[in-house]
Amino acid sequence: MDDKYFLKETLKLAKMGSGWTNPNPMVGAVIVKNGRLIGKGFHRRAGSPHAEIEALNKTTEDPKGSTLYINLEPCSFFGKTPPCTDAIIKSKIKKVVFSSLDPNPKVCGKGKEILEKAGIQTTVGTLENEARTLNEAFFTYHEKKRPFIALKFAASLDGKIATKSGHSKWITNERARKYARSLRGKYHAVLVGINTVVKDNPHLGVRVKGKKDPIRIILGDKKQIHTTSQVLRDNNFLIISTKTIPDLLSVLKEKEIISVLVEGGGETLGNFLDCGIIDKVYAFHAPILIGGKNAVSIGGNGAQTVQKAMKLKNISYKKFSDNLLTTGYAL
Amino acid sequence: MDDKYFLKETLKLAKMGSGWTNPNPMVGAVIVKNGRLIGKGFHRRAGSPHAEIEALNKTTEDPKGSTLYINLEPCSFFGKTPPCTDAIIKSKIKKVVFSSLDPNPKVCGKGKEILEKAGIQTTVGTLENEARTLNEAFFTYHEKKRPFIALKFAASLDGKIATKSGHSKWITNERARKYARSLRGKYHAVLVGINTVVKDNPHLGVRVKGKKDPIRIILGDKKQIHTTSQVLRDNNFLIISTKTIPDLLSVLKEKEIISVLVEGGGETLGNFLDCGIIDKVYAFHAPILIGGKNAVSIGGNGAQTVQKAMKLKNISYKKFSDNLLTTGYAL
Repeated sequence: MDDKYFLKETLKLAKMGSGWTNPNPMVGAVIVKNGRLIGKGFHRRAGSPHAEIEALNKTTEDPKGSTLYINLEPCSFFGKTPPCTDAIIKSKIKKVVFSSLDPNPKVCGKGKEILEKAGIQTTVGTLENEARTLNEAFFTYHEKKRPFIALKFAASLDGKIATKSGHSKWITNERARKYARSLRGKYHAVLVGINTVVKDNPHLGVRVKGKKDPIRIILGDKKQIHTTSQVLRDNNFLIISTKTIPDLLSVLKEKEIISVLVEGGGETLGNFLDCGIIDKVYAFHAPILIGGKNAVSIGGNGAQTVQKAMKLKNISYKKFSDNLLTTGYAL
Repeated sequence: MDDKYFLKETLKLAKMGSGWTNPNPMVGAVIVKNGRLIGKGFHRRAGSPHAEIEALNKTTEDPKGSTLYINLEPCSFFGKTPPCTDAIIKSKIKKVVFSSLDPNPKVCGKGKEILEKAGIQTTVGTLENEARTLNEAFFTYHEKKRPFIALKFAASLDGKIATKSGHSKWITNERARKYARSLRGKYHAVLVGINTVVKDNPHLGVRVKGKKDPIRIILGDKKQIHTTSQVLRDNNFLIISTKTIPDLLSVLKEKEIISVLVEGGGETLGNFLDCGIIDKVYAFHAPILIGGKNAVSIGGNGAQTVQKAMKLKNISYKKFSDNLLTTGYAL
């Protein structure tokens, strides 16, 4: 069992905090002494102990001389909790192996430096891609100074997300819709335009016990929203009215919202596409043809030529019976 | 080696006539005597000998007492060639095993009856589905009294087949486009609306040596077509101007065109969708988003509700690098 093996364990543990850690990253940690795993932990939610602290608290033996594995550089500053570097040094851990530096400028490289100055060996870079992908939102937020933006839509093969009459219940099948709801749980926020709220009265929740509902962002004028709308069912929502997408993103950055799943409708999706700020796309397709010059699809201005269209890379597919989810990242 | 084995051989042989046999079906035949394959043949093109005759002509032993395997009921009437039943009886073949009755009312069941009256054993029904699928166009033509209609389009994930400026070169990649051209070779005719001819000046050929170009059908007023258009490069085209799709299909039925691949543009595809006469769909998708309220997608009136959309069954997928072809049949 090598570094990779234990780092994979940290990723598995980290995922257990999915949805709950925002704006913090998902982090898992294991402590290994003489080949034996003597402690493990993960970051359960923002405000709770960091993964390495949870692991240290749960060790079954004295961690002195052991190796700490963790998917992200240990933090070096006082946030809601004290710096993890202090606790690591105090525990007499001999070596710290982590996949990636922390992109948060308050930490980046400083955690490593502090550990090394205290005579602790460090290794960084193994499974870095996997570690970055797991926390793609967190990395984007700190590196690009804006939330990670994912677009999600459910369409017919001819790209219609609603018929000419605005009808869209349901284009995709139950399994695909269930998966789409579970995606919400991975995001810090979901976003829809005001028209979608007025027309469809969506719930926008994960609707699975034990999963965290994302913040519901409604783009538009709050006067238009009926007070009995499902999106207003609790305080976990924001109604934002900015003129441009970049303005919106500045507001969200300020509010420390690290990721947004943009769910519609056609014009809102089109506006994000036009402004070129999309990191990831989830395109669900059902094997139906809706047709119609006046049916609803991704709108906005759109690309002038095919060459100017938004291209996706790292495409993957997931089947839900005869429905298909295509996932890709901005090229 | 059982009946299935030899009938599979007939299907493989039959496919060798793909594109060339229209309006006839693709047929393959093998003759087996004491477990030895003593002759095989296929229908090469309309007007050429039928498969069973080619097989009989090529036998390496006296076919007396042998079994003839064939994917379709032997014909019983004088067409461009004499009835195959006569030749079979004359050859003293003992048994004829075929997958399906011939849907052509001139033959249907009569071939079987004639053989049986002559004391030849017949078996029908093994691999019937496979045999029907191979000749889906031929079966549809005779059973529904109209050509088999397939829709083909190449779109972005958001269903756009051209940008707002009408630009569409190229949405899909070279491999996908090559495959799309090869599909033409399977159809008796391809069809586009006049606007597509005027705007894109398409070739509509297979462009592979040894493959037959389908008849090019242009829907619209011939005065609009420039005389140097590629579709007019030889006499293998028809310009048809009918008011409705059913009228068009009557004309094509009359002309014994058994299958049509409808390739566009958005309005033509939408018109076929609106009139509900589609048997098969080939939807190519590239991992791009074009967007745009005024971009081109499948038009027409479109469905009023999702429940009224056209549903596809027997979905299959084919990947061309990061492009995907979804194929399905009308439910």
